[in-house]
Amino acid sequence: MATLLQCTPLHHSISLIPILNLSLLLSSSFLLLLAISLPSTIRFSEGTSFLHSEILKDEAVARLNELGKVSDAQEFLARTFQSPASVRAGNLIRLWMEDAGLQTWVDQMGNVHGRYEGLNPSEKALLIGSHLDTVIDAGIFDGALGIVTALSALKVLNISGMLGKLRRPVEVIAFSDEEGVRFQSTFLGSAAIAGVLPVSTLHVHDKSGVTVQGALRENSIEITEENLLQLKYDPESVWGYVEVHIEQGPVLETVGLPLGLVKGIAGQTRLRVTVKGSQGHAGTVPMTMRQDPMAAAAELIVLLESLCKQPEDYLSYDGQCTASTVQSLAGSLVCTVGEISTWPSASNVIPGQVTFTVDVRAMDDLGREAIIYELSNRMYRICDKRSVLCLIERKHDANAVVCNPGLSSQLKSATYAALKRISGEDLDDVPILMSGAGHDAMAMSHLTKVAMLFVRCRGGVSHSPAEHVSDNDVWAAGMALLAFLETLA
Amino acid sequence: MATLLQCTPLHHSISLIPILNLSLLLSSSFLLLLAISLPSTIRFSEGTSFLHSEILKDEAVARLNELGKVSDAQEFLARTFQSPASVRAGNLIRLWMEDAGLQTWVDQMGNVHGRYEGLNPSEKALLIGSHLDTVIDAGIFDGALGIVTALSALKVLNISGMLGKLRRPVEVIAFSDEEGVRFQSTFLGSAAIAGVLPVSTLHVHDKSGVTVQGALRENSIEITEENLLQLKYDPESVWGYVEVHIEQGPVLETVGLPLGLVKGIAGQTRLRVTVKGSQGHAGTVPMTMRQDPMAAAAELIVLLESLCKQPEDYLSYDGQCTASTVQSLAGSLVCTVGEISTWPSASNVIPGQVTFTVDVRAMDDLGREAIIYELSNRMYRICDKRSVLCLIERKHDANAVVCNPGLSSQLKSATYAALKRISGEDLDDVPILMSGAGHDAMAMSHLTKVAMLFVRCRGGVSHSPAEHVSDNDVWAAGMALLAFLETLA
Repeated sequence: MATLLQCTPLHHSISLIPILNLSLLLSSSFLLLLAISLPSTIRFSEGTSFLHSEILKDEAVARLNELGKVSDAQEFLARTFQSPASVRAGNLIRLWMEDAGLQTWVDQMGNVHGRYEGLNPSEKALLIGSHLDTVIDAGIFDGALGIVTALSALKVLNISGMLGKLRRPVEVIAFSDEEGVRFQSTFLGSAAIAGVLPVSTLHVHDKSGVTVQGALRENSIEITEENLLQLKYDPESVWGYVEVHIEQGPVLETVGLPLGLVKGIAGQTRLRVTVKGSQGHAGTVPMTMRQDPMAAAAELIVLLESLCKQPEDYLSYDGQCTASTVQSLAGSLVCTVGEISTWPSASNVIPGQVTFTVDVRAMDDLGREAIIYELSNRMYRICDKRSVLCLIERKHDANAVVCNPGLSSQLKSATYAALKRISGEDLDDVPILMSGAGHDAMAMSHLTKVAMLFVRCRGGVSHSPAEHVSDNDVWAAGMALLAFLETLA
Repeated sequence: MATLLQCTPLHHSISLIPILNLSLLLSSSFLLLLAISLPSTIRFSEGTSFLHSEILKDEAVARLNELGKVSDAQEFLARTFQSPASVRAGNLIRLWMEDAGLQTWVDQMGNVHGRYEGLNPSEKALLIGSHLDTVIDAGIFDGALGIVTALSALKVLNISGMLGKLRRPVEVIAFSDEEGVRFQSTFLGSAAIAGVLPVSTLHVHDKSGVTVQGALRENSIEITEENLLQLKYDPESVWGYVEVHIEQGPVLETVGLPLGLVKGIAGQTRLRVTVKGSQGHAGTVPMTMRQDPMAAAAELIVLLESLCKQPEDYLSYDGQCTASTVQSLAGSLVCTVGEISTWPSASNVIPGQVTFTVDVRAMDDLGREAIIYELSNRMYRICDKRSVLCLIERKHDANAVVCNPGLSSQLKSATYAALKRISGEDLDDVPILMSGAGHDAMAMSHLTKVAMLFVRCRGGVSHSPAEHVSDNDVWAAGMALLAFLETLA
């Protein structure tokens, strides 16, 4: 809370004139976050099929499609932590790891590992990862793209005999949980390896009452609080972490480039809001006598949207906040209610209780804290006014992460080289952008330096079956990772 | 729609001064609906245990508790149409019917019948009924009270030898569905007997895809469109329908009396509102680029509450609406959102779709139509403004029902006599009130004249495990029904 004190909203009245006028900055949207001059649109040149396209494009795309069919549901894609489809997906990824010449194992949080020791097994290892779980009704690229491109690039190195010449160990990790759908707690897999997963997480339960520990046990994986701690990698044994991921936003499509480096990842807070009122018959309680938690929840959600759309109407800052702090909040703040449920959930019953989730993300951690503070205060006041009880629980917090400049620079050079080889043209530069979505790299940043590469997706759409990455962009991502790995030889 | 044209809102602006100022009338609430002078609070006199209290009180209360334990859930009471617990409840009720000397059967909509032919089997029959299904997390009195008190009163008649002297047949019906929880279509049982259930209802399906026909088939009941029509009773064979039910509102408790006659039942409309937006990742779509159906739904629900709390701010009427129409709307209008769901329902996904129910009730049918019309127009405008798609479906409509004055008068006299016997005191009169809740009597009014008796409940609470009727009030209801049946001998 020390940071919050330095950046506390001073005034709560909507009618107050903000000390810093953010409204002019708001129109800049996410695109302002591009830190460098934008290169022109590139084309994939003819006659480049020799650039390992049969593995980095054709096979990689086929693998993405195959993995996208491994689902717990028939009509849509869904793989949650330790679900039957997740286990099948892990087995498939393990086969691909072996196909790339890696030694494989599954750890006690269900993460699937594939490692090659290289010339110097005692050297610090490069870790490359992404997640094998998905949201409900997901696209086939989110998470899978990072795993598949890494294994394709390593397969090319293996076939060409380069794998044996790597100067340090390389390990690919398919993390068991990034989305947090089943247990409402993200990064179960990567946080365990980074050593930042609280042991109490093992006893968190899903909607059916199964705990994290129980879910693993159902798949014959025994985890205790003690061996969870042992999953943590020794920071001295790790050189860095690299992740390839679909952008899940519109920036790369807008600038017409397949790849971009990530400067940082937005911080995130997840709340669960429970509103308790007076349950009753829909026909017999006069409107004026109701303590209706559904009407209250609706008012809270309208407030949330308004606050996040126009934070300058609600917040003003003291002198200790810098202009850039305020700018990054205004440009990157997003708030979402993705889940809501009523109890007892019948059309002719005034609910006794309504529960909903709130997801708040911003590049600026102080600004995000200020928003949560202001939101909570206003929510409690609305609930008081309506004589309903409000419970606001913080379920997840992650500060924004800044990617490592050195490692990012190496990855950027490799990406530049790859794009140049593919297009056969000179490029201005590789774009640098911010990530509004959380990634395993956030957890891994507690263990080692991290760098991330974003891949363009159609319409900026993700977490949807409409999510799409073109075959050529899959290929470009594989080429960039291959070029990066070649610098280790 | 002809009625609507006579009572159409003329103006839509909130700032318009209503032609009739309803705000003064609103404070009158439901209590205004009491049509007669209120009697003073009555006490149950000492030494009245001889008034069949062992059957009408002790056994009736024991049966209510026993039936309240027959549930599909362990932690709360839930019996939906043709669920396993509903079938067990029907079997139990059938045993109690036989215990009262009735001949029993189950019809092809799952209604449980118990009939005594009396001295003149060809005479028109008195039907007494209520429902055996419940909402989710229900109280034990809603529906069950009407069935149990009827069977207790008939058991007293049977034991005393009076049953054989009834001048007309008496039939108790435990209706299979009044709440409409499973199929979102109320009165499946009573509407079939009244002949007003559309045959298409057989093919309506529940959330798991099971149809009404399929649900009956799972319990070895074969129903076709043809024999559904044959379930309709011949109006010439029926004399009238009487129902005892808990009030589910605060009026009787407020006036301090256990029983009251029902003047009429509010009309009801059920809507299902579907809002379709653009599904996406919670972290990557800027607030200004969203088409978020959850934020839209919240705004719609806030509108609904405001409109139903203060209809005078939204509506004004042309000269053809009478003052009493407007008064009854203002005093009785209630609107509820009891169910809401998002798709795909994950905290880190902007939903692609949100669906919620709307339950609107009012004593005045024209006023209710005007509210639905105004609500729909304003909802569509909000959805247009937000670039989301709105679909408003009318799932259920029932006009208000006026109870039969003659039959009600007979039931009222019997109630007065019963209360006098129990209290040993003179009373002013039995109160008459309106019902904001729908009842099987609404469907049965299409077949025959109806009358209803309300029983006081604690705090006006219903559709909740906190629902409570005192033992003495259960007894009073049984006594009133017994006194009414004795007039048939």
